[in-house]
Amino acid sequence: MVSSTTRYAAGRKQDEREQLVHEMEERFGLLSEHPEDKVILNTSPECIVANLKGWKDGWTAERVMMAFIRAACAAQRKTNCLTEIMFEQALQKAKIMDKEYAATGIAEGDFWGLPSSFKDTYNILGVDSSLGCSQHCFVPTEKEEDEATLVKFFRSAGGIPFCKTNIPQTLLAFECRNPIFLTTTNPYSSERTCGGSSGGEAALIALHGSPFGWGSDIGGSLRIPAHYSGICGLKPVRGRWPILGQRSSTKGFEGIKGMVGPMARTVDDLIFASKTMINMTHSVADLGFNGEIFIPLPWKEVELPKKLRVGYWTQDHLIKTSPACVRAVEECVRKLNDAGHEVVRFEPPDIAEALKIFAGLTSAEGYKSLLGNIGSDPMESSMRLVTLGSKLPRWLHWVLCWVVENLFKDHLFASIFATSRPKSVQELWQFTARRDIYANAFRKLVWEDEEFDMLLCPVQAVPALEHGTTKLLSPLSVATILFNVVDSTVGVIPVTHVDKSLDIHASNYLENSQGSWILEKRVYENGGAYDAEKMHGLPVGVQIVGKQWEEEKVLSMMKVVEDLVRYEA
Amino acid sequence: MVSSTTRYAAGRKQDEREQLVHEMEERFGLLSEHPEDKVILNTSPECIVANLKGWKDGWTAERVMMAFIRAACAAQRKTNCLTEIMFEQALQKAKIMDKEYAATGIAEGDFWGLPSSFKDTYNILGVDSSLGCSQHCFVPTEKEEDEATLVKFFRSAGGIPFCKTNIPQTLLAFECRNPIFLTTTNPYSSERTCGGSSGGEAALIALHGSPFGWGSDIGGSLRIPAHYSGICGLKPVRGRWPILGQRSSTKGFEGIKGMVGPMARTVDDLIFASKTMINMTHSVADLGFNGEIFIPLPWKEVELPKKLRVGYWTQDHLIKTSPACVRAVEECVRKLNDAGHEVVRFEPPDIAEALKIFAGLTSAEGYKSLLGNIGSDPMESSMRLVTLGSKLPRWLHWVLCWVVENLFKDHLFASIFATSRPKSVQELWQFTARRDIYANAFRKLVWEDEEFDMLLCPVQAVPALEHGTTKLLSPLSVATILFNVVDSTVGVIPVTHVDKSLDIHASNYLENSQGSWILEKRVYENGGAYDAEKMHGLPVGVQIVGKQWEEEKVLSMMKVVEDLVRYEA
Repeated sequence: MVSSTTRYAAGRKQDEREQLVHEMEERFGLLSEHPEDKVILNTSPECIVANLKGWKDGWTAERVMMAFIRAACAAQRKTNCLTEIMFEQALQKAKIMDKEYAATGIAEGDFWGLPSSFKDTYNILGVDSSLGCSQHCFVPTEKEEDEATLVKFFRSAGGIPFCKTNIPQTLLAFECRNPIFLTTTNPYSSERTCGGSSGGEAALIALHGSPFGWGSDIGGSLRIPAHYSGICGLKPVRGRWPILGQRSSTKGFEGIKGMVGPMARTVDDLIFASKTMINMTHSVADLGFNGEIFIPLPWKEVELPKKLRVGYWTQDHLIKTSPACVRAVEECVRKLNDAGHEVVRFEPPDIAEALKIFAGLTSAEGYKSLLGNIGSDPMESSMRLVTLGSKLPRWLHWVLCWVVENLFKDHLFASIFATSRPKSVQELWQFTARRDIYANAFRKLVWEDEEFDMLLCPVQAVPALEHGTTKLLSPLSVATILFNVVDSTVGVIPVTHVDKSLDIHASNYLENSQGSWILEKRVYENGGAYDAEKMHGLPVGVQIVGKQWEEEKVLSMMKVVEDLVRYEA
Repeated sequence: MVSSTTRYAAGRKQDEREQLVHEMEERFGLLSEHPEDKVILNTSPECIVANLKGWKDGWTAERVMMAFIRAACAAQRKTNCLTEIMFEQALQKAKIMDKEYAATGIAEGDFWGLPSSFKDTYNILGVDSSLGCSQHCFVPTEKEEDEATLVKFFRSAGGIPFCKTNIPQTLLAFECRNPIFLTTTNPYSSERTCGGSSGGEAALIALHGSPFGWGSDIGGSLRIPAHYSGICGLKPVRGRWPILGQRSSTKGFEGIKGMVGPMARTVDDLIFASKTMINMTHSVADLGFNGEIFIPLPWKEVELPKKLRVGYWTQDHLIKTSPACVRAVEECVRKLNDAGHEVVRFEPPDIAEALKIFAGLTSAEGYKSLLGNIGSDPMESSMRLVTLGSKLPRWLHWVLCWVVENLFKDHLFASIFATSRPKSVQELWQFTARRDIYANAFRKLVWEDEEFDMLLCPVQAVPALEHGTTKLLSPLSVATILFNVVDSTVGVIPVTHVDKSLDIHASNYLENSQGSWILEKRVYENGGAYDAEKMHGLPVGVQIVGKQWEEEKVLSMMKVVEDLVRYEA
């Protein structure tokens, strides 16, 4: 039963959005009627700016904005990826900039005239940051100081924010659905999710509805959608650029450090976005950072070692990685090997422990703050398993764990589920200490003992899932969560597509698997989540991982792999 | 009633220490019998290394070590500042180094042949890190990987750790006493504390018993002893050099970020220590960092603006600052002004809020982990007020707050005391969010709006207190705690001495004070903690504050002030 509050908020928000999209479609026509837009939509953000600044024939900020508005409207029709629409304001701004440039010849800023989309969590003046919750609707960001600093940076470099994109309710899921804006679908299949929480962003960018965009990541929120939707993304480590001005669903939680990062169709676009933002932390002090402090480390061009030392794995031993996702990693391995790099198989230490730590920390206050955002809205099914442990009475939680451990004989699942429950502060601090021990040991092993330049691994065990199937499969995010727990710089690039002739799993695929059989069964048994036939053509990405504060090196390594695999969307 | 465990541990630890000190005194004689040592003891660490490397006549590592052992023994006799004694091992090491140097002519490392002392919290191979608790006695650090990384750095640069120094029980006090090693006294007065928690370090260095040393700071633990004992210290911000391998009394607590830093007699010595350590994070990767990751930012010489913009205050409005400590700041102000800098009085925003946040966060699990270190040892009185709020039943805590607020009419004290109590995880996260709001607002105000290069303020309202008087005056540390809450780089330098002809407070000193009268009464009423007559001659320091990761700039600014005030010990 949906409450009247939810119905009212959802109805009004959807109507407003529909009206603003429809208005643009009426005024400018549909993307399908404008094949000439393709030139603009296929131009990289950096070149768009260069073309605008270079007075390239037919290129104006208004013209560029118009093309992306048409593409964003088309993406919205196809995937329902937008939340807040700022098309009209963006167009006006573009017009003014064109006029001024014509008059003065001055076009300052690396993002001059460039449209960009932002995940719904970024506060932007004049619009909501609702997290898909009715109680946060109709309370737009009003004060300039409350706007996300990254948005201010973007504006200050001449960029024009033109829309915000959809997220899961409260962000705690990797399916992109909430009761206000409803479901965003995968750009490759309407039956499937685009991933989450930065899902709308991924869908929009995959469909060329934005030159690039901005997501965030605390457990894979930027990387999973990039993987599911076939685009690139970078999760940097705190300190290189601003994170202030994000609406969070749990204030004061710091056990796992989230971060905001760029999402784009190519690594070059990520480099362009990252370099500009990093350098701005050193050059736009007059903008005001609201007290946020950045590592005084400007962008630094890196020269990679000729022979990269790469450690890779294909299995995390919690849920067996699907043939398609194994193949994506192995293709990279083969090509890196062929290119003369040193690529070694590496058995990562107890990745399930990272998930236990993550669940232990995030569940510590029983998701009270997080669930407080939902109010009378109906809870999305994708949040069910995650929040279950915290809602059960302690004894029932214990009984359930016992049953899973002893009757179902799934020790792994039981041990993870056991950590997901409300805790005392003392227990929380024990988990924090456990995190530090794990993270330090992991970093010591991979960067000091093994001396890897790069880790290479799947983004998730499977490609994009069908809507509604993540609800009992939230532990799938272990592969991305790992790098939030150990606080690494991580990029995702698309590598291949699911191929029904290569990626079908044998009926004995789970033989000898040491993973959680409860979870693996849901993925690989008949009618399970993984099905190479049905998934044929879906994109598959990989994670490319480096140390903290090595954004430049990670991006360069992503480019090395991208150049080798030559992915085509 | 002291338990037999405590008696046994204390007796044996004290005996061992006495024996090792006595042995050296027998072998090498007393410092008072060796006035020729003064040349070595008065030479800066950097020059000691230069003399050793330059084969200066009569200078060998062994000779230097011998002088500092004599001085350290004398400091121990005077102040009881040592815990673990490594004199013999240090001498042997020095001899070997001399021999090798004579044979090879190779002396590598910036600390070549230099002795140094470390706070008891630093794990050093072969000796305890007991925190003054009997349960941590006789469990020396055995594995090389468990040794503090900073100690390894020091060794790797040719330095020779030669002793560890005393701390308060569990570190939670700014008096330096524990049931194992007992009380360390102030180098200027045996009636008074040297401060804490890095108290033994401060006493030893003030008495030239070590060329420089290493402390740590989570609420003033390095700065208060520097102020009380008349030396310099630097509290950097996490990331510039290693903190791993410290024994902490509360594992997993991260609400306030502690850090380790150097303590020395001059700012040049701090610069020498800091520069070397910071550069080593980039050059000694082969040592292994145990997974700790440093900001990739080598030491960078700074050029200060000709005209520094300095914001200063003398009052924190919680406990009125004493005339001596006000005068210390004002002398700096006058001299900075005379030197052409722009010095403006600045009213800092609600410093008591920083203390509430600090108390709210640190007390969140009722000091359970911290008190777990004490076991059957008697609890030091200095920990009483701090831990009181957490040990009371909730209703009694509430009643006490009500009484202080409504009957005693001390709103400020009541509001601080109210935050010190066990909390749920949800409440803890609310305090974390409150910290971020306060810290960001503070940093925005001082670094962005006011554009200060430097903040200048008292280290504490009073100079060194008498033993036993801090127990009800723990809120005095608000002035240092502030900069842990807002996470600044802070240095302390000594500026002047208490002067009974200048610093006596008038009988109406508290008139119109808006501070906590309960606390202020204890400080300024008859027989109170502050007494310029009795305090005559005690050192008085100031804090010099900069942004995060601006160690170089803060040290340079400290040097500017040091050069102006020309303090003499």
